[in-house]
Amino acid sequence: MLSFDSCVEWLKSHDDYLIINHRNPDGDALGSAAALCRGLRQAGKRARVLENPNMTERYAEWVREYGSGDFEPRKIISVDLADENIIQTNASELIGRVDLSIDHHPSNTHYAANEFILPGKASCGEIIYMLLRAISGGIDSETATLLYIAVTTDTGCFRYKNTSPDTLRAGAELLEAGAPIDLNRVLFMKKRRSRLALESLIIGSLEFFMDGEAVIGYITSDMLERSGATDDDMDDIASVTGQVQGVETSVTMRQTAPETWKISVRTGQYSNADLICAEFGGGGHGMAAGGTIEGSRESAAETVKAAVRKHWKEK
Amino acid sequence: MLSFDSCVEWLKSHDDYLIINHRNPDGDALGSAAALCRGLRQAGKRARVLENPNMTERYAEWVREYGSGDFEPRKIISVDLADENIIQTNASELIGRVDLSIDHHPSNTHYAANEFILPGKASCGEIIYMLLRAISGGIDSETATLLYIAVTTDTGCFRYKNTSPDTLRAGAELLEAGAPIDLNRVLFMKKRRSRLALESLIIGSLEFFMDGEAVIGYITSDMLERSGATDDDMDDIASVTGQVQGVETSVTMRQTAPETWKISVRTGQYSNADLICAEFGGGGHGMAAGGTIEGSRESAAETVKAAVRKHWKEK
Repeated sequence: MLSFDSCVEWLKSHDDYLIINHRNPDGDALGSAAALCRGLRQAGKRARVLENPNMTERYAEWVREYGSGDFEPRKIISVDLADENIIQTNASELIGRVDLSIDHHPSNTHYAANEFILPGKASCGEIIYMLLRAISGGIDSETATLLYIAVTTDTGCFRYKNTSPDTLRAGAELLEAGAPIDLNRVLFMKKRRSRLALESLIIGSLEFFMDGEAVIGYITSDMLERSGATDDDMDDIASVTGQVQGVETSVTMRQTAPETWKISVRTGQYSNADLICAEFGGGGHGMAAGGTIEGSRESAAETVKAAVRKHWKEK
Repeated sequence: MLSFDSCVEWLKSHDDYLIINHRNPDGDALGSAAALCRGLRQAGKRARVLENPNMTERYAEWVREYGSGDFEPRKIISVDLADENIIQTNASELIGRVDLSIDHHPSNTHYAANEFILPGKASCGEIIYMLLRAISGGIDSETATLLYIAVTTDTGCFRYKNTSPDTLRAGAELLEAGAPIDLNRVLFMKKRRSRLALESLIIGSLEFFMDGEAVIGYITSDMLERSGATDDDMDDIASVTGQVQGVETSVTMRQTAPETWKISVRTGQYSNADLICAEFGGGGHGMAAGGTIEGSRESAAETVKAAVRKHWKEK
């Protein structure tokens, strides 16, 4: 683990950076990678982001330009990547070769030669922001916008309980540096009609257990077809199941193949999503984690329910 | 208009305060009133909040205790009350007798003998926070909680575009002073099943106009009955209609009597909700305003549509 100062020094003393992140990248992964790339370029470095083939259209307009750069990479930096097992799909040949991991996941598997991990931070974007201020003294409005996307994505626009006073202050400074407040509307308050249709189908599918304090919501292939929803409608979809009052643990099971279910688990203060998902080989944060289960809808649901029960804590 | 210092001096030099707010009080009205009451009491004053008969259960647990106090009021303070026409229903005999109005509405009608109005503030809670710091030097965790409810209610938990860097810093300080971050979950991320059922009915009722950039959503008596939704499910209900992507102006029409419609208008950067609602005798903020229209569903909708069209600005 590098100290903050030595991480800054490391970034200043090398060059020709290739920046990567995780598959199914969210706003924190994409915003952090693009912001780091822009900041390094402004500090006189060559840097590019390895374009992520699973990026949703939602973020493309802000981050796409950082995918270009004509040089042979000499240093590989991963951002927001807890485990090489979930490295972006076109970067598998970089496994074992990451020179620096910048991350905020407590579950980081320490795969990189160097690392700067602050598990107390709500987003990787907050860490990139600290580093760029130290490297360049400040950030411009484009970098502020990218970091604002990162910070707000991982905190549900300052609503999730990982939001700290420092997160809010970072948000204040990023707005002052030029991030447009209207991003909130675009990213957090607007939904496509197909997304809204899918949400009402999910609400209709809810199965409660543990005396109504736990719930499973389904996203089957059939529901996707009926709503017209696509991958672009899936950002933070697990929050739909999580919004039911009185529910402590919520599970979203999304069918990605006839017998394959992508599981997202959200927990409140009495359980631990990371531990629940570790039961079937997944992981993440204490209050939001995920994994994959093979099998029928019924057997996959039973596996999840058993894991939720095992880590249930009475209030 | 009092200066900040003279408002602080006014509050310090009088006593026996009765604090009132507006009908259909939201978290900003209730949290601001209760926080001011608590802060004044801690500064050695007698103060109580006139209990608001339209208060929803949602906020009762935090604010109820400020309704008691055995003294004859000598000064009346209104908070978050833009116009005496919408004074809380049990305070009509106080019209014309308000000694101090503390408010953040640009549309304030200047009805009070003294006023401290900061129209640039996203919430009345931010103003109360400034005043209490000046009066007492600081706030305790209960006051921080009340002010956090106020600030987050009027900003959609820091998502609406009225959120300023100062709003986020106030949020940071209130968390540090003891407001529990879990309030976000309780107030902004959890919905009762009846609320979720109503939301899907509203989505099903949407009528688009202005080439899909404006929309009306309905809440009829019949929909309330079918969903089982009550007044406790109505907080910020206008945001349901406002969430459709591509929509610039959204209108929510709620039936409160067979021929009476409560109108809420939300606008983006190309229109003005306050001006739209002024067309039928309502008002509010530039991006969120309301009013009432009598008549059939069709005629009320036509009135609203005409007002939206009149104030439409091309992008």
